[in-house]
Amino acid sequence: MSLLIDEWRIIQEDFLPEENRYFESIMSSGNGRMGLRGNHEEDYSGDTLKGTYVSGVYYPDKTKVGWWKNGYPEYFAKVLNAIDFIGIKVKINGENIDLAACNFSDYKRELDMKNSVLHRSFVYIDPAGSEYEINTGRFISYHDRDIAAIRYSIKALNNDGELELLPFLNGDVRNEDANYQEKFWEYVSSSATDSISYLHMKTLKTNFNVSAAFAWSITGTDTLEKEAVNLSDGEFVGTRIKASIPRGKTITLEKYISVISDRYYETDKISNISVKKAQEALDKGYNGLFSAHKKKWADIWSMGDISISGDTAAQQGIRFNIYQLNCMYSGDDPRLNIGPKGFTGEKYGGGTYWDTEAYCLYFYLGTRKPEIARNLLEYRYNHLEKAKENSAKLGTRGALYPMVTMNGEECHNEWEITFEEIHRNCAITYAIKNYTEYTNDESYLLEKGIDVLVETSRYWVSRVNYNSDKNVYMILGVTGPNEYENNVNNNWYTNRMVKWSLQYSVDTLKMMEESHKSLYRETIDRLGISPDEIEKFKDISEKMYLPEDKKLGIFLQQDGFLDKEIIPAECLKSSDLPLNQNWSWDRILRSCYIKQADVIQGLWFLNDEFTKEEKIRNFDFYEPLTVHESSLSPCVHSILAAETGREEKAYELYLRTARLDLDNYNKDTDDGLHITSMAGTWMSIIYGFAGMRIKKRKLYLSPFKPESWKEYSFFLVFRGRIINITVCDTDIIINLEKGDPFDITLYGENVTVREGRNQYRR
Amino acid sequence: MSLLIDEWRIIQEDFLPEENRYFESIMSSGNGRMGLRGNHEEDYSGDTLKGTYVSGVYYPDKTKVGWWKNGYPEYFAKVLNAIDFIGIKVKINGENIDLAACNFSDYKRELDMKNSVLHRSFVYIDPAGSEYEINTGRFISYHDRDIAAIRYSIKALNNDGELELLPFLNGDVRNEDANYQEKFWEYVSSSATDSISYLHMKTLKTNFNVSAAFAWSITGTDTLEKEAVNLSDGEFVGTRIKASIPRGKTITLEKYISVISDRYYETDKISNISVKKAQEALDKGYNGLFSAHKKKWADIWSMGDISISGDTAAQQGIRFNIYQLNCMYSGDDPRLNIGPKGFTGEKYGGGTYWDTEAYCLYFYLGTRKPEIARNLLEYRYNHLEKAKENSAKLGTRGALYPMVTMNGEECHNEWEITFEEIHRNCAITYAIKNYTEYTNDESYLLEKGIDVLVETSRYWVSRVNYNSDKNVYMILGVTGPNEYENNVNNNWYTNRMVKWSLQYSVDTLKMMEESHKSLYRETIDRLGISPDEIEKFKDISEKMYLPEDKKLGIFLQQDGFLDKEIIPAECLKSSDLPLNQNWSWDRILRSCYIKQADVIQGLWFLNDEFTKEEKIRNFDFYEPLTVHESSLSPCVHSILAAETGREEKAYELYLRTARLDLDNYNKDTDDGLHITSMAGTWMSIIYGFAGMRIKKRKLYLSPFKPESWKEYSFFLVFRGRIINITVCDTDIIINLEKGDPFDITLYGENVTVREGRNQYRR
Repeated sequence: MSLLIDEWRIIQEDFLPEENRYFESIMSSGNGRMGLRGNHEEDYSGDTLKGTYVSGVYYPDKTKVGWWKNGYPEYFAKVLNAIDFIGIKVKINGENIDLAACNFSDYKRELDMKNSVLHRSFVYIDPAGSEYEINTGRFISYHDRDIAAIRYSIKALNNDGELELLPFLNGDVRNEDANYQEKFWEYVSSSATDSISYLHMKTLKTNFNVSAAFAWSITGTDTLEKEAVNLSDGEFVGTRIKASIPRGKTITLEKYISVISDRYYETDKISNISVKKAQEALDKGYNGLFSAHKKKWADIWSMGDISISGDTAAQQGIRFNIYQLNCMYSGDDPRLNIGPKGFTGEKYGGGTYWDTEAYCLYFYLGTRKPEIARNLLEYRYNHLEKAKENSAKLGTRGALYPMVTMNGEECHNEWEITFEEIHRNCAITYAIKNYTEYTNDESYLLEKGIDVLVETSRYWVSRVNYNSDKNVYMILGVTGPNEYENNVNNNWYTNRMVKWSLQYSVDTLKMMEESHKSLYRETIDRLGISPDEIEKFKDISEKMYLPEDKKLGIFLQQDGFLDKEIIPAECLKSSDLPLNQNWSWDRILRSCYIKQADVIQGLWFLNDEFTKEEKIRNFDFYEPLTVHESSLSPCVHSILAAETGREEKAYELYLRTARLDLDNYNKDTDDGLHITSMAGTWMSIIYGFAGMRIKKRKLYLSPFKPESWKEYSFFLVFRGRIINITVCDTDIIINLEKGDPFDITLYGENVTVREGRNQYRR
Repeated sequence: MSLLIDEWRIIQEDFLPEENRYFESIMSSGNGRMGLRGNHEEDYSGDTLKGTYVSGVYYPDKTKVGWWKNGYPEYFAKVLNAIDFIGIKVKINGENIDLAACNFSDYKRELDMKNSVLHRSFVYIDPAGSEYEINTGRFISYHDRDIAAIRYSIKALNNDGELELLPFLNGDVRNEDANYQEKFWEYVSSSATDSISYLHMKTLKTNFNVSAAFAWSITGTDTLEKEAVNLSDGEFVGTRIKASIPRGKTITLEKYISVISDRYYETDKISNISVKKAQEALDKGYNGLFSAHKKKWADIWSMGDISISGDTAAQQGIRFNIYQLNCMYSGDDPRLNIGPKGFTGEKYGGGTYWDTEAYCLYFYLGTRKPEIARNLLEYRYNHLEKAKENSAKLGTRGALYPMVTMNGEECHNEWEITFEEIHRNCAITYAIKNYTEYTNDESYLLEKGIDVLVETSRYWVSRVNYNSDKNVYMILGVTGPNEYENNVNNNWYTNRMVKWSLQYSVDTLKMMEESHKSLYRETIDRLGISPDEIEKFKDISEKMYLPEDKKLGIFLQQDGFLDKEIIPAECLKSSDLPLNQNWSWDRILRSCYIKQADVIQGLWFLNDEFTKEEKIRNFDFYEPLTVHESSLSPCVHSILAAETGREEKAYELYLRTARLDLDNYNKDTDDGLHITSMAGTWMSIIYGFAGMRIKKRKLYLSPFKPESWKEYSFFLVFRGRIINITVCDTDIIINLEKGDPFDITLYGENVTVREGRNQYRR
């Protein structure tokens, strides 16, 4: 691949059409409210995945299924490819610029992650040999979330030329991933003038309204013809601009775009607002908008950067992850969440998975203000009623959160996942603990989280069954995190997390009864909790059956796991891997191979509750069987490897996802980026290499340094502080950049960190 | 419903549009080579499921699936709605006859099962009050399988009238059940004249060619205008006939149809042949064709009728089943098999399931010449190479027969069924034993069956896994006959049948080695069998793990079955039933409720290998948990109930399917008939009530009589004999109608049955 390694930039220095989708993916950017793949502004008739996404705007695509099972949802919500607002048709001397069809040289595409701006340049060579240099820049403002701007320059290198530029908005867009090849949008209104245009579209069924508008300016020419263009019954609007360009001169078009959805503004005003905002953006100018935008990104990096010395590829990889996580989710709207592909593609529909709680939450807790992480929790609280409906639909009580969702309703339709991968409920309750412990903010737990705890506990009461012979509770018919096993009985991870979650509910209620009496009474009344019910939570938690093998001293992934043939994954032929591409589903299911951390995921979540010996025995048993065919797997194993002193293994596992998309490790970067697993890679460094933990609300560190790195340092946001921690060969330097002094436990010893630089021996 | 009870006839005496599909289904008929639903000949614009089916002609409909799993097939073969050849457009005094739109009285539709002819009659009342009586008859010849004939009479009751009749062929037909709403046929050629027309269509992808032709005659009028009609680019051809009808007179149109497919004739000749055969049919005339047809049906009834005195509804029910089974499958072509809906609808695609071996084979063995049953076995032998490919696709060796198939390739795409319901292999090997024991004909076993035995044994060798801890072989990840459990470990039925099947392979090879030396050597060489391999078959059979509960003295449906909450089905609320409509799949899977005979199916197949006490304990444990939500379930339970002396229960279970479609018990008769379960109902009487068994190649009987029946008698075809057995209150009368005297075991005592009547006390 023609990707260059650079600390801050993603650089493509050659254009190969077969790599175009890949580069479009890795050049994606966003501001939490909208996102764009790295598509060309001018026409491109070659292979491309056009992607313009507007947060919270989705379509309920009718379920496609071979064999219906009772309980399936009617639809799968899909993130939408929205109005194409970046487009500029460019003709030079009457020829349309289309890099799939015309002659060009010196192509370069470059994403500057520090400032979040995408630059492109190339030299167009016309049939007569005249050369024109194109330079483009574009950014989606992190300062004003409704605004994007494009600068498109053309320089006549060796001859005069005639230019025709047509900046436009196009609403005739479709998803590649549409179950029934339907168009998801319908036209509402539009207008084109020779200075400003807007296009208002709305989604079918969901009735989300989006209006995009743009204004433009041009420099470098005085003589200009311009006319409004309105095509396709108004779905395509823009302005055609004609100008002459003298040899040696540069003409620069600037396109100022606003994208307004009625998720933030009143529906009947969005057209006007979009026009007004586009005009205001024009007034501020490209440089003005850019400087406000840059400042926001500087803030982000100042709280969340990781720098690695001595390994530029690793440096690029981790910054890419931090960058994309911030493009995807800015945390100011609790209705939004994090799709597995973010704003970088359509795969998986853009819905929310348990990835959010199991991976992403850690990242946003560690690098942003607590409100941002809290909004991820609010999202689930706001969906509690839907989760109760979902549970009722399946014939159980309480709340079962969906496997995949946009608005709280289940979207997924694979029975072994939708109905059985119910451990997701526990990731959601675990996130409450995680947030509370990290931030020391109990208000969510007391005011909202308790409802989530009680209603999910009620679900478990109705989902377990009591085995009177053995005097235990069991959970039958589940799929654990390892989706290479389906419909198993007593998945250890699920049972263990349910045991924990019920106990957490009981403990929280007890704590409230002791310390927040009136709130407790109010909660008991609101939720109609009886003492018997709390007893039941406790009883199930205490008598939960946990499969184990005493001889091996391990927790059993599920009942009967050892009836399988147990052969380490290293004995597999390379032609077998990845299993999910080379083996039938039948063979995968019957094998002992583990797709992603399962027992190990439990050892990670409930880290304090197991001895080091237990961790070692289970890690040594399960890691050799784990094929890590989910990008969410290696990070958790990496953390456990680090914790159990297997530093080389920890680094090796970290490497498996550190540059997953940049190196196109799974050959699927074309479809978009693995956004949620990027948070996992971040965790491998912070919780793995640096050994960070929160125990009893206190910060612990016990860093090691991968040998091939000279040193690494990272920022942490922790209770009003910004801390920078550097791990060198011999020392740990903790720089308290902002906030009050505090105590941490470093390698098991208490130290007090004061403002400025604090240096410790490793 | 307006269905009348009659011993030999299915009678509808009132026309309610909402019942039309139901009556179309139960008025279906066929001759094994083609089949028709009971559609109207004249136009019907109301709710109807048009169905014309031609044996062996199918379309590979592209797989529709939500989530692809490796190993899924690319298509699902679908039985096709083919050229509509029954159609006659009828206008009287310029008004089109369409019972959804016109005024009529005295409607009657009647299927005469004895002679296999469908009659209809009604009085059309025109807007002016003129009345015309319509009488129709039609049959699909069981004598010449390519021929059908229709007689359509119109009598002017109270006024003269002007008639316009348009008998036609229409190729513009579709399946209701098409995954992507595609049309499956394309036009090849056609011709219409004023005397004879043909239409040649072919299927897309599979390229099956079908040409239908018709000739016609008319009586009761001299004055006639006629003209050829050719519409829709040739896809609609026919002849428009105009005639005057004087008051009190009758005009009768006869339509003589031939349907020729290139499964039986050379492709480029089928158009000509169809025309020639239609002309020949015309020459023979309706009465001539009908009398040859009637004689064939008389033969069928003389070998397979069951008569029941004292219960007309039961009589109608069982004759309906026998009739439909013979319409569906005539057994003269080993490429054909029995779809679950026969030629009566599109549901389930018309493919072959293990129903054939588990249910239908018994019926055809007992009521038809052995060649007919043998062809069902040849079908599987001919698919052996495809079954090997299927196994290889899943990463196993040997042969795995498909769950659903037309041509030997798997069609089904539900992983828990396609990859896991692998016990089907055993039904196929069991059928070899069943055929051989019943007919005493070893030639199939020795020449072909042995290949099926060895290749399926090889599959099991690669599918089991050895558990060295317990020194047993296990079979993980299966779905048993009870599809309300998926992906279980060690389904007792599967393990037990595999144990048996491997042993049968070993025994057969040993028998060949001893008694058919040269054939044995030839077989060993052809299949490349090593002594080690036979040892392996034996070892697995001997060490197969069979889950049981010693305390309860029962076989365990699967590992961990008793971890479920065990609550008898009678405790379910009536609003819960059927579970498959009222419960989520999640809840069904976790429950103890059994869709269809599972352990009990094993007790039935391997009937000799269990003690009566074992049968009683297992029946008494599993029957109360069985909800019989498959129509294939009650018959097996009924037989076991009879065998264990639970006669009332046996009768109660028999009743659950005896009139399943006639009484529209499952509210799905509209979609077509439950053809394969009809064989099960037959089994309930013969193997259940009459206690028929073949043990060591000898016939056993120990009949009882349901109390509400006065007496019942049935025919059996057995090794060249036709036997009629009557069970009365006090006696058993065995009439040896044809064939040599033979010994049977009656209530455990040997008796010699001689030609003519043999009477025994019960």
